[in-house]
Amino acid sequence: MPATLDQIKRSMQSTNDLFNSEVFGKRNFAALDDIYTRNARILPPGAPMISGRKAIKKFWSDMVQSANATSAVLASVDVMPVGDAAVEIGKATLTVEPPGQPAAQMEVKYVVYWQQEDSGWKWHVDIWNSNS
Amino acid sequence: MPATLDQIKRSMQSTNDLFNSEVFGKRNFAALDDIYTRNARILPPGAPMISGRKAIKKFWSDMVQSANATSAVLASVDVMPVGDAAVEIGKATLTVEPPGQPAAQMEVKYVVYWQQEDSGWKWHVDIWNSNS
Repeated sequence: MPATLDQIKRSMQSTNDLFNSEVFGKRNFAALDDIYTRNARILPPGAPMISGRKAIKKFWSDMVQSANATSAVLASVDVMPVGDAAVEIGKATLTVEPPGQPAAQMEVKYVVYWQQEDSGWKWHVDIWNSNS
Repeated sequence: MPATLDQIKRSMQSTNDLFNSEVFGKRNFAALDDIYTRNARILPPGAPMISGRKAIKKFWSDMVQSANATSAVLASVDVMPVGDAAVEIGKATLTVEPPGQPAAQMEVKYVVYWQQEDSGWKWHVDIWNSNS
């Protein structure tokens, strides 16, 4: 029986929550194995595209530690299932706490192309930009 | 007979070429009817998401005229067919010629979620950001 849209959304939300709780909250970058597909690509603002989970792990490890980022709360705006995959539009609130400065929040919007890999829903293409 | 990947890519390239030749080259914003689906959404850097073709037309009309943009050359980096749709990763070179200033070029990367509508391949979700 194929998953319902609600089941897909719940699976996706649990992946999104991992990104906040493990990667940003605990700096557990190994959790990115459960978030990105092996051949995932990210397209960050201000940098060229980055391909493959190993390079993506380095990106987030560098970013979280250099900005002292402490949370990344993701919320789906729209989930569009297509074939056995899905396209998500979402928004994120990032919190950074640079040493000696007050905490700051950034509002970001994103598009993720999701695929199923190893029985989980993962980010295969991930692009975002800032609202301001 | 389903279209081959090459046929899909050619259809997509002709849509992408319209964006350069008609929208940027001739400022024919009506051509956006053949480029975006009716319920398309764009996620531009520095602004909130914009929904629907009418609002998208206003965005590009304002942007092209205020920046005096003269070309937007798009090139696919990867096309991933999924279901009866496709996800494209691409790059674009935008040329702007502000009055009294030398022409400048901007390198942009993007992800487009393509759907078929009215027998053409069109942009349904369009997000981009700068490399620098």
